[in-house]
Amino acid sequence: MPQYNPPLRDMQFVMHELLNVVDELKLLPAHADIDVETINAVLEEGGKFASEVLAPLNLSGDAEGCTLDKTSHEVTPPKGFKEAYAKYVEGGWPALGCDPAYGGQGLPLVINQSFYEMMNSANQAWTMYPGLSHGAYEALHAHGTEEQKALYLPKLTSGEWTGTMCLTEAHCGTDLGMLRSKAVPVNEGQADGSYKITGNKIFISAGEHDMVANIVHLVLARLPGAPEGSKGISLFIVPKFLVNADGSLGARNGIFCGGLEHKMGIHANATCQMVLDEAIGTLVGAPNKGLAAMFVMMNAARLGVGNQSLGLTEVAYQNAAAYAKDRIQMRALSGPKAPDKAADPIIVHPDVRKMLLTARAYAEGGRALSTYVALTLDRALSSADEDERKEALDEVSLLTPIIKAFISDNAWIATSHCMQVFGGHGFIHEWGMEQYVRDSRINMIYEGTNTIQSLDLLGRKVLGDNGAKLKKFGNLIASFVEDEGVNEAMQEFINPLADLGDKVTKLTTEIGMKAFGNPDEVGAAAVDYLRIVGHLSFAYFWARMAKVALAKQGSGDLFYTAKLSTARFYFAKLLPETAMLIRTARAGLPSLMEMDEALF
Amino acid sequence: MPQYNPPLRDMQFVMHELLNVVDELKLLPAHADIDVETINAVLEEGGKFASEVLAPLNLSGDAEGCTLDKTSHEVTPPKGFKEAYAKYVEGGWPALGCDPAYGGQGLPLVINQSFYEMMNSANQAWTMYPGLSHGAYEALHAHGTEEQKALYLPKLTSGEWTGTMCLTEAHCGTDLGMLRSKAVPVNEGQADGSYKITGNKIFISAGEHDMVANIVHLVLARLPGAPEGSKGISLFIVPKFLVNADGSLGARNGIFCGGLEHKMGIHANATCQMVLDEAIGTLVGAPNKGLAAMFVMMNAARLGVGNQSLGLTEVAYQNAAAYAKDRIQMRALSGPKAPDKAADPIIVHPDVRKMLLTARAYAEGGRALSTYVALTLDRALSSADEDERKEALDEVSLLTPIIKAFISDNAWIATSHCMQVFGGHGFIHEWGMEQYVRDSRINMIYEGTNTIQSLDLLGRKVLGDNGAKLKKFGNLIASFVEDEGVNEAMQEFINPLADLGDKVTKLTTEIGMKAFGNPDEVGAAAVDYLRIVGHLSFAYFWARMAKVALAKQGSGDLFYTAKLSTARFYFAKLLPETAMLIRTARAGLPSLMEMDEALF
Repeated sequence: MPQYNPPLRDMQFVMHELLNVVDELKLLPAHADIDVETINAVLEEGGKFASEVLAPLNLSGDAEGCTLDKTSHEVTPPKGFKEAYAKYVEGGWPALGCDPAYGGQGLPLVINQSFYEMMNSANQAWTMYPGLSHGAYEALHAHGTEEQKALYLPKLTSGEWTGTMCLTEAHCGTDLGMLRSKAVPVNEGQADGSYKITGNKIFISAGEHDMVANIVHLVLARLPGAPEGSKGISLFIVPKFLVNADGSLGARNGIFCGGLEHKMGIHANATCQMVLDEAIGTLVGAPNKGLAAMFVMMNAARLGVGNQSLGLTEVAYQNAAAYAKDRIQMRALSGPKAPDKAADPIIVHPDVRKMLLTARAYAEGGRALSTYVALTLDRALSSADEDERKEALDEVSLLTPIIKAFISDNAWIATSHCMQVFGGHGFIHEWGMEQYVRDSRINMIYEGTNTIQSLDLLGRKVLGDNGAKLKKFGNLIASFVEDEGVNEAMQEFINPLADLGDKVTKLTTEIGMKAFGNPDEVGAAAVDYLRIVGHLSFAYFWARMAKVALAKQGSGDLFYTAKLSTARFYFAKLLPETAMLIRTARAGLPSLMEMDEALF
Repeated sequence: MPQYNPPLRDMQFVMHELLNVVDELKLLPAHADIDVETINAVLEEGGKFASEVLAPLNLSGDAEGCTLDKTSHEVTPPKGFKEAYAKYVEGGWPALGCDPAYGGQGLPLVINQSFYEMMNSANQAWTMYPGLSHGAYEALHAHGTEEQKALYLPKLTSGEWTGTMCLTEAHCGTDLGMLRSKAVPVNEGQADGSYKITGNKIFISAGEHDMVANIVHLVLARLPGAPEGSKGISLFIVPKFLVNADGSLGARNGIFCGGLEHKMGIHANATCQMVLDEAIGTLVGAPNKGLAAMFVMMNAARLGVGNQSLGLTEVAYQNAAAYAKDRIQMRALSGPKAPDKAADPIIVHPDVRKMLLTARAYAEGGRALSTYVALTLDRALSSADEDERKEALDEVSLLTPIIKAFISDNAWIATSHCMQVFGGHGFIHEWGMEQYVRDSRINMIYEGTNTIQSLDLLGRKVLGDNGAKLKKFGNLIASFVEDEGVNEAMQEFINPLADLGDKVTKLTTEIGMKAFGNPDEVGAAAVDYLRIVGHLSFAYFWARMAKVALAKQGSGDLFYTAKLSTARFYFAKLLPETAMLIRTARAGLPSLMEMDEALF
């Protein structure tokens, strides 16, 4: 069975040595009291929960899956999941990043993000139950009325209830403007805030389960006479059990699990078809503004998906590295390295190392970027300065599609490499490696496919403001390049970073010009473009990490030696992907559109 | 449920218009009578068998899997498999490529290869039952005694019995030199040809099932006093039921299925742990020369794995293309294309087309290369001229690792893209797309991992003879480049092909030089190198296909228009991968070996 060791040392490196999060957080009134010891203590305890409680349930949960009782419509997750959830609540973990006004601990997101990384490494399918719940919490916190917040947020904060996002219908996922679920006022003609909602939703993660007393569904539906398309969609709270004014539970509401999906991965999460049959719900936010309200949740969810992929990359790496040191097979081409054994450990083979280092460089690069973005989001939410909040939010919005798509694509590559290290055993369930590959695959799809992320990045975030947000991020890089330009030891990292920065600037202009002529040029280049900017951001953080490691190399702590080696690997073997991507992005639209649809 | 339409038109294009197989086969005495009509008729009937009998069992077979009765040790494949196999035998299909001396039809491999492509598209897991059997047939045909051949080959040819390859043990897959299974003469001291074999094998595909009366296992084991390592391994026939001299079945032999593996994919194939407990077997070939004898089977199997991946790429493409034309979601960025509908079909989106065309270009390129190699293998086996046989075999041996690894890596990319076209539905079992991804994953592992293939290519096939075999293949390309250099319309294909050819020559020399200094440089570059040479061979065949299509474009047959568009796509969007690969190959060993093993 695969093992998981929380990467506390690397998390501390990123937080305290690379990003100095405590100094940054001190500038935010809500987090001015946080200190290194608190952060480390929370991560250590969180790591124990992940590795000791969740990790042992990952493989068995995948094999067992969820079961639906077709009579009662109740769903039972795999053995041990309910008990693990009870421990999670008992430990106060759901409240970590929640508002103290509703019983939360009010810790910064940057800590919650690392805690979630560890839970995702240990058990992505389990972690989706509280993860979706946190998304519902955020949407309600941002858009609910005071009454709604008072009724629901304390229970979501304590973890007594969980939440879901009910968006997708069978005929529409990406294109929510087409959705058909209907909401009509309970009291015909007088909208008192209660609606009867009818429709069918699919792909509802954690949609039904027996781990909590109530489930708070956030549902998108159309009001009578609503405009067509995405401008006619409203958001509703639809609890599994109606909630009385005093917070006690009332009648079973008309929202049921009609079926469970049979999926490629995340078997242990209940992916439900939800049937709403005049289910009672209350409106969240303004009528017809549901998509905007839901976007709060979706943006958080997109960062969450990047984090799931980061977690899978890390745990797959750990297990593949351990196997490669243990498994003996063949001799090194350059002669025996373990002559006392019947064969050498496979880590002597350069390609095995390449597969391992790919996963490692993607995990550590992803951790640096994700932690940076979480910290920026803390500034966006908690800075006392409005301009800073706006600027931070702009940066988060630029980097969100990169985190979602680049890290999830990388995880697909990395988990597959790590599985390959195991040879035939990698294909067998009991080793756990193929599960990481299967679980990671959904991350490229849900919360907006990676193609959608790339259109969001290139079309909306970059070209949409004539490159202003990108330029600001580019300035960070340029000033780092300038500062380190005089540092001889940094040249091997700075030169390719600066070179790629220049190329991105030129490429962005070129695509922008082409897009004036034909907007489809954006769609032709977007996926390549996202990976190029993803590499630019990784190269930036790898260069910064190399700088820290170079400075501390004399300490005798081999952590820094490994960090430098991994940085060198990243620049030598992963960054060159941009040479391909720039070519294919520049090749643009013609070869994609030449063939008539009928000939496909 | 996914659909499958045999790509007869494209197969005919490759055989009759690109490769002129009939003219080539006429030069081989054994196949001089073959004509276009016969080939087309066989493929049409074979396509019906694949699409009508096998395809409907693919999804259900995956869901159901195989079951082992732990008392009787009998294995039951999924519903319908046995009946489909009976139809296969009834139709005479097992005999297609077999020797007429044993009841075979003696058709050329190039036909059998296309028949297998269709069966693999329809149902890879089912096709492995007869596929492994054919491998056993080939090993026995090449290395068995007359008596063994007379006893076993007619039944393998008719399909009444099936065969397996029993190589892997838990502690050794790649490194068969470590295997421990033991064979001792039945009559102590006097080796009369019968041995008692004891040991444990794993990963035995089609190792046990109820579809035939007997299973012929080819087993690797060590004789008493055999040298250590790979030079002490012998090959044995170990039938499930002992075979009497008259061909009738005798006692149940001591070879049993001890367990079934739970795998990521190919669920419907019985991957068995086989226990040999003094099982009676007879030696095949010379003592201690078992690995060499087995290599006949393994080389054929490697081509077979490329063919499995070709089949999956084709069927995934077909279903994704159909879905992309049918599914409506969002509008084209350049404005509505289907204004009468609620949204445009997703095939209007450039990135959807990119994913589809990637699969299409890999399928059609893979088909051209695979068919060419099968034809070359026919020449290697059946030419009257010894020099031609040797030359043809050299070419096959150069291209075999490319077919195995390049096509299987491409299938992993392509099936994943095709699944992505389906959005969330792609992750759901009932659509069938995620199964293609899971099934394709094993092809990168078994019959020698893709890393092993790359070492075989670069270390053995290329550097091992100082590039002689590669140079011969390069001469084919160079002469095509020279011939077409004057053709204006061909420049867009010829120029990048010629350019890559030059780069491969330089790169090969560079790696060869480095490898003198440190043999590990081969291991550092091999995987990138294989993909580069893979692209060189695809670029060659795409340029040749473009030439045919250009010449026939005026015919009004849109098949040629589509072929040209796909060729252009290949050169614009897939070939540029070589820009990355050449960089990473040249980056070589240092960044891979810098980090101490303990720091992983």
